[in-house]
Amino acid sequence: MAPLPRAYQRVDAAAYQNHVALAHQARGAPMPSNFGAEPLMSQGASDDFLGPCDEVVCVSEALDIDFAAGLAVITADVPMAATPAQALDGIRLLMLANDVSLRKLIPAELETGFGRLQSKPATAFSPVAVSLDELGPAWDQGRVNLSLQISWNGRKVGLCEAGPEMTFHFGQLIAHLCKTRNVRAGTVVGSGAVSNRDAAHGYGCIAEKRAIETIQDGQPGTGYLQFGDRIRIEMKGPDGLSLFGAIDQKIASLS
Amino acid sequence: MAPLPRAYQRVDAAAYQNHVALAHQARGAPMPSNFGAEPLMSQGASDDFLGPCDEVVCVSEALDIDFAAGLAVITADVPMAATPAQALDGIRLLMLANDVSLRKLIPAELETGFGRLQSKPATAFSPVAVSLDELGPAWDQGRVNLSLQISWNGRKVGLCEAGPEMTFHFGQLIAHLCKTRNVRAGTVVGSGAVSNRDAAHGYGCIAEKRAIETIQDGQPGTGYLQFGDRIRIEMKGPDGLSLFGAIDQKIASLS
Repeated sequence: MAPLPRAYQRVDAAAYQNHVALAHQARGAPMPSNFGAEPLMSQGASDDFLGPCDEVVCVSEALDIDFAAGLAVITADVPMAATPAQALDGIRLLMLANDVSLRKLIPAELETGFGRLQSKPATAFSPVAVSLDELGPAWDQGRVNLSLQISWNGRKVGLCEAGPEMTFHFGQLIAHLCKTRNVRAGTVVGSGAVSNRDAAHGYGCIAEKRAIETIQDGQPGTGYLQFGDRIRIEMKGPDGLSLFGAIDQKIASLS
Repeated sequence: MAPLPRAYQRVDAAAYQNHVALAHQARGAPMPSNFGAEPLMSQGASDDFLGPCDEVVCVSEALDIDFAAGLAVITADVPMAATPAQALDGIRLLMLANDVSLRKLIPAELETGFGRLQSKPATAFSPVAVSLDELGPAWDQGRVNLSLQISWNGRKVGLCEAGPEMTFHFGQLIAHLCKTRNVRAGTVVGSGAVSNRDAAHGYGCIAEKRAIETIQDGQPGTGYLQFGDRIRIEMKGPDGLSLFGAIDQKIASLS
């Protein structure tokens, strides 16, 4: 089970703007008019969180199944109109997330303006959610200055720096969320896929790899997840020990 | 308190297509490409539901505060890929909702594609959620054949037929939601503002009244809610008795 097997609210941001920029550039779309000024953030499902080793069950491979390796915090009550600094004080726990998408369904859902729904199956979280003091100096005012390790079928595809390029830190994300309403205890706020400008760090989701390929070669070369594939996401501390335990999931068919 | 003061998931649909059509027509926007084939539906916040007489606290009147009178169901577990008929069996309780919006913030949030967030403050629900047998024959395969009464500062502005013009019934709405994922018990699914083609029934949200005015007169004549305004929403059975009790809320300022 996930640290919270379900929650009363969950939102996901695109806190790493490199990822947003690449995605837009690859599909030739104009950047959102508020790019850089405010985070992209959407309400997500919170009724059915997956444990770290639960299978990712999908109805079809043809829906372009993608993982996304990111961080997520669990908040206390944060009152309406709290500042980013006040919102930082409302963070209680930190965990890792594998925020799965069905990429094929996203364009039509974005076109409606009403956000992603069918394109977002259940999200998985790390075995353990830790309090911020467990991070020591790696917790830097709403950012985590550690690397996120991502493996796909045993091959390392990402060693992404989670801290420096997180455009909006978790205090800013929560402040965005509570601008017009109270945020209640147990809310899960996700960072979205970790992303670094230097492609040598690899990638936190396949869509980003495909965006880079599209920009460089005119078309993507990497396919999406297949049934039976495994994704492993882990973050180690300076002492080399796993901080949250690993997410390690197999992609599986519903039928 | 609301029947559920918080829930693990909440989604809202635009189940009455007359409302969607009017809104698009008034702003000269093209209809969504899947209009009529699939419901518009978005994830919503479920961490902070308001009781039926709680104040609607908003940061500013200038954000164009609007009510929306609708129905909502609470589900049992509904498995991934359930049909509309199977999903109907997953409905456990029915209640009324006042789904408040800050209309000024909606266009920019729709433009991002990621859906409404700051434009959706807390939603209120009726005092009582009832099981379907309480409705008798008024429960018609996922639709409620009764009138929703809406008053604004004591003046009746809506006597809307909830049943016949609900384009997508609750079984269809839940099936849309669980197409690619499991829906867990306690999920709240809202209908969106009740809307009738015959304007003699009045309106379930101010935006609809303004859309009609814009289409007829070139501009809206009705303003949005002001601090101190009251909204009352109630539904009576054939015996004249209130089925869910009344939502009766005052709009109030945060500061």
